[in-house]
Amino acid sequence: MTTIKTIETELYRIPLTVTLSDSTHGEIAAFELVTCRVRDSDGAEGTGYTYTVGRNGGAIADILKREIPELIEGRHADDTEAIWHYIWWGLHYGGRGGPPVLALSALDIALWDLKARRANLPLFRLLGGFDVRVPCYAGGIDLDLSVEALLKQTDDNLAKGFRAIKMKVGRPDLASDIARVQAMRQHLGDGFPLMADANMKWTVEEAIHAARALQPYDLTWLEEPIIPDDIAGHARIMAAGGVPIAAGENLRSLWEFKNYIAAGAVSYPEPDVTNCGGVTAFMKVARLAEAFNLPVTSHGAHDITVHLLAACPNRSYLEAHGFGLDRYIEHPLVLDQGMALAPTRPGHGITFDWKGLAQLAQ
Amino acid sequence: MTTIKTIETELYRIPLTVTLSDSTHGEIAAFELVTCRVRDSDGAEGTGYTYTVGRNGGAIADILKREIPELIEGRHADDTEAIWHYIWWGLHYGGRGGPPVLALSALDIALWDLKARRANLPLFRLLGGFDVRVPCYAGGIDLDLSVEALLKQTDDNLAKGFRAIKMKVGRPDLASDIARVQAMRQHLGDGFPLMADANMKWTVEEAIHAARALQPYDLTWLEEPIIPDDIAGHARIMAAGGVPIAAGENLRSLWEFKNYIAAGAVSYPEPDVTNCGGVTAFMKVARLAEAFNLPVTSHGAHDITVHLLAACPNRSYLEAHGFGLDRYIEHPLVLDQGMALAPTRPGHGITFDWKGLAQLAQ
Repeated sequence: MTTIKTIETELYRIPLTVTLSDSTHGEIAAFELVTCRVRDSDGAEGTGYTYTVGRNGGAIADILKREIPELIEGRHADDTEAIWHYIWWGLHYGGRGGPPVLALSALDIALWDLKARRANLPLFRLLGGFDVRVPCYAGGIDLDLSVEALLKQTDDNLAKGFRAIKMKVGRPDLASDIARVQAMRQHLGDGFPLMADANMKWTVEEAIHAARALQPYDLTWLEEPIIPDDIAGHARIMAAGGVPIAAGENLRSLWEFKNYIAAGAVSYPEPDVTNCGGVTAFMKVARLAEAFNLPVTSHGAHDITVHLLAACPNRSYLEAHGFGLDRYIEHPLVLDQGMALAPTRPGHGITFDWKGLAQLAQ
Repeated sequence: MTTIKTIETELYRIPLTVTLSDSTHGEIAAFELVTCRVRDSDGAEGTGYTYTVGRNGGAIADILKREIPELIEGRHADDTEAIWHYIWWGLHYGGRGGPPVLALSALDIALWDLKARRANLPLFRLLGGFDVRVPCYAGGIDLDLSVEALLKQTDDNLAKGFRAIKMKVGRPDLASDIARVQAMRQHLGDGFPLMADANMKWTVEEAIHAARALQPYDLTWLEEPIIPDDIAGHARIMAAGGVPIAAGENLRSLWEFKNYIAAGAVSYPEPDVTNCGGVTAFMKVARLAEAFNLPVTSHGAHDITVHLLAACPNRSYLEAHGFGLDRYIEHPLVLDQGMALAPTRPGHGITFDWKGLAQLAQ
């Protein structure tokens, strides 16, 4: 039997080359990376990770080091359902969200990487390949940029091969948001896929007002208009705003997504594999969305997620984020005419530059 | 201006004199206590705590030490709403549940204690006193006890002055649950308040079946019949089971309680002040329940919670738990004819035996 032998966890603080900002998280000068390397009893390895925008990383690493190894000692490395179950319930009291789920996500990603590598398959194929080419957008974190800088960033993204772009909204005045979206639409031309992300800034009424005012600019979606706790509010914005709604980066379980989807509160469910419970949970959310005839998109961790969406007939856009991690990855995401290509190397195909990361260890 | 000067955090592992068990958490041999002592710029002190049934304590302590002090540096110690807001949002990415909320709860309790001590008022009076006498029940964790041992534990609880008792259900076979509840009802007599707690053991259909089978034994409530994530399932059990439902120890925010209450999914909302977001959040849940004409009960931390329920016109029973903490508290909870008495000392009135605890520090 192939059992889990060792689990190695590291916490890193990755400085950003440019300080980012959005309407809720304020200035983000660095992000935290928590890595998880699993080695099985045959010596095979898998790697997973999760990240934060600057806090909770210590708690996540503590859980991966202190709690998780004991909970799954001696388990068969391929039994991802069983392992997920034992960790979810083993950490349930004081868990059921927050750092325990981010820790679980990192471990689950490592186990899926391990399984795919042992099977000598790229992850997307192990999950049931659909299409190696995944539509992709550049996720800009640009709320405080001037319009000129916003358009300059956009040109850079076009030059990198992106054919869809997301921008931030949620500035202190709606008029400024409208002017920026209008400038982007004029710059990109009609039909170019453009999304806007409010990062939970608004009240429900403000969101409906904003959605209506943004209708002329043909947004693919409006993201996180309000706090993730208000499902009924999302449903009201969907019904009254007239713009599709994306949400999910702050939802922590299949059940939270189900509550949204069953309530008609989201157009584009948007799980993040590093915080929704890993590959195991992400794929269940994606299949749930398919059952409800909804496209599924993603948040963060594009290098892992490209595999997951490449296995989904209902995949929408993959988010590509500029979180500076590319500097520490051997093969960063490859774009071809706006499509991200799932790597065909075994596993998820990411190799970290452990030596480069070592200097950022906390 | 009275600002927060220092925040001291300790993690302890409290062994239980008897190993406890319920249907989900398995055997509980020890629980974790995380304490938080706040000192303000005038030298006044407040104490808070949270606990777990054995895991996640390291993560909670990490957040209290690493994240929270920075987030609230220089804030006015009395501004509990502002401090709550800055911590909730400062830890939101990777938070919104789990250890960040337990850490926030411990800090918030300490701030309310500090405020009440500075005002020279018992906490229940600072919150708006309603009745110093709070109905109280003994929360037994007794799923694996024989019927004889269960009745013996019950006699001990009666001798301690309890006039209401909760027992565990959720054994592998429903017949055994029924037999135990029947034995308890016969032992206690008609009209004696008896509750049963399934700790999320069942499916919705199993819960409805169990509730109907338990109807003859006149339970005050049936607690946590299913997983906390299934709000619609709770509503179905409420409608079809014919027994009042209590739930809330695994809900982590005012909004989660609102979703339950607005959906008609709970008869007795049951927040735990140490994991729902502290005094600030508990009181909002209690007032929300009042607005919906629902009684509010509680989970855990009876020594703090007796103050909160003593300030609620809609208070139902306080849960008293035998988690072994009494050994390390100067003035344990006082019962008078089944009623718990909110202490009239300033603050919440709990003084830990720090010297005794020191040997359990992790």
